[in-house]
Amino acid sequence: MTTLLESYAAGHWFRASDEGEPLLDATTGEEVARISARGLDYAAMVNHARSVGGPAVRALTFHQRAKLIKTLAQYLNEHKPELYDLSVRTGATTRDTAVDVDGGIGTLFSFASKGVRELPNDTIAFDGNLETLGKHGTFVGQHVYTSRPGVTVQINAFNFPVWGMLEKLAPAFLAGLPSIVKPGSQTAYLTERTVRLIIASGILPEGAVQLVSGSAGSLLDELGVHDSVAFTGSAHTAGILRRHPNVLDGGVHLGVEADSLNCSVLGPDVQSGDPEFDLFVKGVVTEMTVKAGQKCTAIRRVIVPAAVASSVSDALAARLATITVGDPRDPDVRMGALASLGQRDEVRKAVEALRSEAELVFGDPSRSMGDARGAFLSPLLLRARPGAVQPHDVEPFGPVSTVLTYDTLDEAVTLAARGKGSLVGSVVTHDGAVARHLVLGLAPWHGRILVLDRDDAKESTGHGSPLPMLVHGGPGRAGGGEELGGVRGVLGHMQRTAIQASPDQLTAITGRWTPGARRLAPSEHPFRYSLAQLQVGHSITTEGRTVTLDDIEHFAEFTGDHFYAHTDAEAAARNPLFGGIVAHGYLVVSLAAGLFVDPAPGPVLANFGVDGLRFLTPVKVGDTISVQLTVKQITPRNSADYGEVRWDAVVTNQDGSPVATYDVLTLVAKS
Amino acid sequence: MTTLLESYAAGHWFRASDEGEPLLDATTGEEVARISARGLDYAAMVNHARSVGGPAVRALTFHQRAKLIKTLAQYLNEHKPELYDLSVRTGATTRDTAVDVDGGIGTLFSFASKGVRELPNDTIAFDGNLETLGKHGTFVGQHVYTSRPGVTVQINAFNFPVWGMLEKLAPAFLAGLPSIVKPGSQTAYLTERTVRLIIASGILPEGAVQLVSGSAGSLLDELGVHDSVAFTGSAHTAGILRRHPNVLDGGVHLGVEADSLNCSVLGPDVQSGDPEFDLFVKGVVTEMTVKAGQKCTAIRRVIVPAAVASSVSDALAARLATITVGDPRDPDVRMGALASLGQRDEVRKAVEALRSEAELVFGDPSRSMGDARGAFLSPLLLRARPGAVQPHDVEPFGPVSTVLTYDTLDEAVTLAARGKGSLVGSVVTHDGAVARHLVLGLAPWHGRILVLDRDDAKESTGHGSPLPMLVHGGPGRAGGGEELGGVRGVLGHMQRTAIQASPDQLTAITGRWTPGARRLAPSEHPFRYSLAQLQVGHSITTEGRTVTLDDIEHFAEFTGDHFYAHTDAEAAARNPLFGGIVAHGYLVVSLAAGLFVDPAPGPVLANFGVDGLRFLTPVKVGDTISVQLTVKQITPRNSADYGEVRWDAVVTNQDGSPVATYDVLTLVAKS
Repeated sequence: MTTLLESYAAGHWFRASDEGEPLLDATTGEEVARISARGLDYAAMVNHARSVGGPAVRALTFHQRAKLIKTLAQYLNEHKPELYDLSVRTGATTRDTAVDVDGGIGTLFSFASKGVRELPNDTIAFDGNLETLGKHGTFVGQHVYTSRPGVTVQINAFNFPVWGMLEKLAPAFLAGLPSIVKPGSQTAYLTERTVRLIIASGILPEGAVQLVSGSAGSLLDELGVHDSVAFTGSAHTAGILRRHPNVLDGGVHLGVEADSLNCSVLGPDVQSGDPEFDLFVKGVVTEMTVKAGQKCTAIRRVIVPAAVASSVSDALAARLATITVGDPRDPDVRMGALASLGQRDEVRKAVEALRSEAELVFGDPSRSMGDARGAFLSPLLLRARPGAVQPHDVEPFGPVSTVLTYDTLDEAVTLAARGKGSLVGSVVTHDGAVARHLVLGLAPWHGRILVLDRDDAKESTGHGSPLPMLVHGGPGRAGGGEELGGVRGVLGHMQRTAIQASPDQLTAITGRWTPGARRLAPSEHPFRYSLAQLQVGHSITTEGRTVTLDDIEHFAEFTGDHFYAHTDAEAAARNPLFGGIVAHGYLVVSLAAGLFVDPAPGPVLANFGVDGLRFLTPVKVGDTISVQLTVKQITPRNSADYGEVRWDAVVTNQDGSPVATYDVLTLVAKS
Repeated sequence: MTTLLESYAAGHWFRASDEGEPLLDATTGEEVARISARGLDYAAMVNHARSVGGPAVRALTFHQRAKLIKTLAQYLNEHKPELYDLSVRTGATTRDTAVDVDGGIGTLFSFASKGVRELPNDTIAFDGNLETLGKHGTFVGQHVYTSRPGVTVQINAFNFPVWGMLEKLAPAFLAGLPSIVKPGSQTAYLTERTVRLIIASGILPEGAVQLVSGSAGSLLDELGVHDSVAFTGSAHTAGILRRHPNVLDGGVHLGVEADSLNCSVLGPDVQSGDPEFDLFVKGVVTEMTVKAGQKCTAIRRVIVPAAVASSVSDALAARLATITVGDPRDPDVRMGALASLGQRDEVRKAVEALRSEAELVFGDPSRSMGDARGAFLSPLLLRARPGAVQPHDVEPFGPVSTVLTYDTLDEAVTLAARGKGSLVGSVVTHDGAVARHLVLGLAPWHGRILVLDRDDAKESTGHGSPLPMLVHGGPGRAGGGEELGGVRGVLGHMQRTAIQASPDQLTAITGRWTPGARRLAPSEHPFRYSLAQLQVGHSITTEGRTVTLDDIEHFAEFTGDHFYAHTDAEAAARNPLFGGIVAHGYLVVSLAAGLFVDPAPGPVLANFGVDGLRFLTPVKVGDTISVQLTVKQITPRNSADYGEVRWDAVVTNQDGSPVATYDVLTLVAKS
């Protein structure tokens, strides 16, 4: 007997009480491992995640979590060879494995980077701007995101045993959630191996990741209000999950990313011989053959102008003929096996259904290839008859696509929409007007749209690749969920709450200074304080400076900015907004800096930017301006000996009217 | 027989084929109207919304839609008296009606304003920043929101017949969706009257609003992928909706906002005699008695420190004793009737359940008050026994609250969390540390949290009032939905799609210039062009200007900004980021303006701001800078003879390295 895969539950590797079911090598039919979760205590797992993993993760800031994800990515990168060795048994070619293993590790790196760059070094995140709720500024509103005190269960498909886990793990971990991973059984040995690496590394806090090798059993029965299930797989299983009482009435969040009938549309501007024609053909063949077409993002519907349908079909067939199918251990092989013989039966059945309304243009579904025990299948291209319905409804989860034709752009959009919602669509055109028409028509039906042409082809990552910084998921048939998308994927795991309070209380709650809140008068100029000494609310109000006509004229001369509103009294008087000479906005902020800067060397290292500068009241000759500068937010960088300080700057005139408001961004030494 | 309420369907007022069911005045039991939808063609309504209303709304930009919403608000404002006259029959006092009618109209005004200020004058909206997907910048990603080609069905509760409709209508209309309104029957006569005003006004495009007076019948059977149901009401009905096949498997979006067991927590710092003590008592009594406690946001659980529980109970009882219950036509009456006798029976049943674990502290559920045919009920305050379970589970939808006690802050959070998710919680404290502890503990369980103290009390809108700019909805028992929240509520009705393309194609698709896209060389300086003449992509590249030590020293002297990095060569050399004298950032942007500004009077009226300024490479003595200024986005203002132009500014040095990047915001005359 081969190894029985174990589950990682409540801090221990758990071995089932029976012998388990065999998992077979996709290409040879040999047993790779056995799987069973019999006897697994699901309630203990959920409890462990809630009481041990969750609190440990949530004790870290976003930046600290991001750093652990980066460390984990580096660790897994060093252990890639053993994952590659095992991956071939799933039927994957080296290229397929790169998508799964390197793609998964790359997703970790990407989230680690986004977590540091786009989230605060804190445990809560802000959403949107401050809302003023009362005329006098004593009552304000701010949306924040906080971590749910729950657990997320990921239920994955068999096709990406590594990427599928890591793309869900990274955003959940960043959001402060412990994960329980339930891989698709067929390839669970590769997920199990990866989890063993993760656990052995000791990088993530105990309880942050647990593994179910085998059936999810009663796992969902244990979940409640703040727990979530992130599912990738068939619409059928999604329907079962949606019907679970804890999802229907118990407040469990369910995210679904389901296989969909993704399309690729060729623009009517493209003719045989154009670079886009070749890009289109190449793209379709790639999507049909990578992972032997077992990708929820693969192109199932090839939508082309009727006029070029035959030349497209011919070109696709010719290119498909060059694809060698066989044992992925053979370096000449371009397409490996389906995951199992059962899977191949399913695909053949779907192709049978399609053939009632479509002609087979390339391939033979019954042809046997390679090792008879392997789940090999030839790529299959069909061409639909006019008015065909099946291609919009039947999904063969394998190397199969169907060509459909259109006459007008609106017809192309209508055909695409008949998929009832897809993960991704692509549009291949070099005409901007065509791109606009098709993309805006397709957008409501898609989570992602690739526009491919000669300009982006070289750097394009292709139709089928979800990217960590872009949302993955689509409406309708695609499940209605959203994953990845950079911080979107993180915040989607958190609770958004509108907080209404006085500025002082909002400052106390969030740790970020709120306009209107009390200001602290430091005993020295705040530029004298290190990051450790600075406090949110530290503030100075500067002396005033009177702006003279000389100043304005001099500034115009010096900078070369002779805009008439600053230099020509008569013309300026006719300006509907100013009605006379006004100071340059850049002069105002330059003088403001002159007022608030403390010049001597000290902890403040640099001003690296300005955000949201608005000029509210024109500064006229003789006006006296002064500045109130207040520490708004302090963000230590974990990887440097300095951090970022965001200062609230308000420039007012002698009447107290705000002249300019903005945030000044500085780097300040930690000590 | 009284009037039979009609439905507005497919462009006509429809009268049911039967006599309908009677709707009774809540205070007198007299028949107000009858209601029935028998014979209504729901499929025709959905089809009308899809084929007539939707396209008409989506042909407008966000700004145009916002303007219609504002016009509608003004129109309804003029017709308030007839709505007030009718509202009293629902049992509402004048104050109650203000919440419903003025609150609803105010929501329209708020969304009209947000729509113009926070959304583009276009039909698509951007989400987040451009993502660079390739090293050479030829492949980029941008998330956009597009309108779903569907319809939204709102199913409302009886308690806010006007606000309930308008708070859903405004964001949906802004999002480009036609609405079908299905009010709670008990008070549908007030909704029907309001819809009659809306239709008669002719302000919204035909098909944008339809009305079902009576049962929703087979309405949900007609919905599909891009349609949505926005439901407000009981968890029980929400459960039925969640089980509809079109929701489970058909891709219909369901948003639920359900009654929840909202709590108000008194901080341990507050003692009898403190302003917060009185604010707390006042807040609880208000929430118990406004709309006779028939509010999904009302306070059901009063969570107080054990030490002050008795004084809180006494103070609440004393204040409740001052509330006059009776006919809302009587100006001395503070609390009107429940919506119906049936509703009162439900509340009495719930109170019975609570009394198994709680003592009645104030009121008598069986006491008859006012007209015997009116659904009057005394306010009822209970005090839970330790460990009581019912107060966290049973919701009396009337003037009923239960006092619960805690010893530690964590215990208070645990009690609040036992409500399993609420729309809103409030925290009454004047201590920042207490506020932080309680609010961050409560946040994951709430959609909104009010922090009340002496500082914000005067301007506070209170615990129970959802505001248009803040999200309304909560996790778990509260339904898991989100409404309102300003643009969040609009975008929540739209589809988010990640678009991957070359910068040129992305520019063509979105109408906004994308960095890396081709630049257009105008024949004149673009400051010479009116808004109508300017094109996205119009660009100039300026001459260079060499920055001398003199310039830097002079700028320091002139502005007073003597920061050592600009003035002290030795100290600047020790700065880890600069390693020598650098030009002021403000000098760089001032000189840049001097390079790109075209001075003569013309269409450019003013520079009103700068966004996202980042200094990327220090400018050293002898460096030569130049600027590339490109039209990024053109936003005409519908209500002015000018519009906003957002310019992409890139300052580079003699090596071509970017020195500073930012957006310049100008106002430009339309012609």
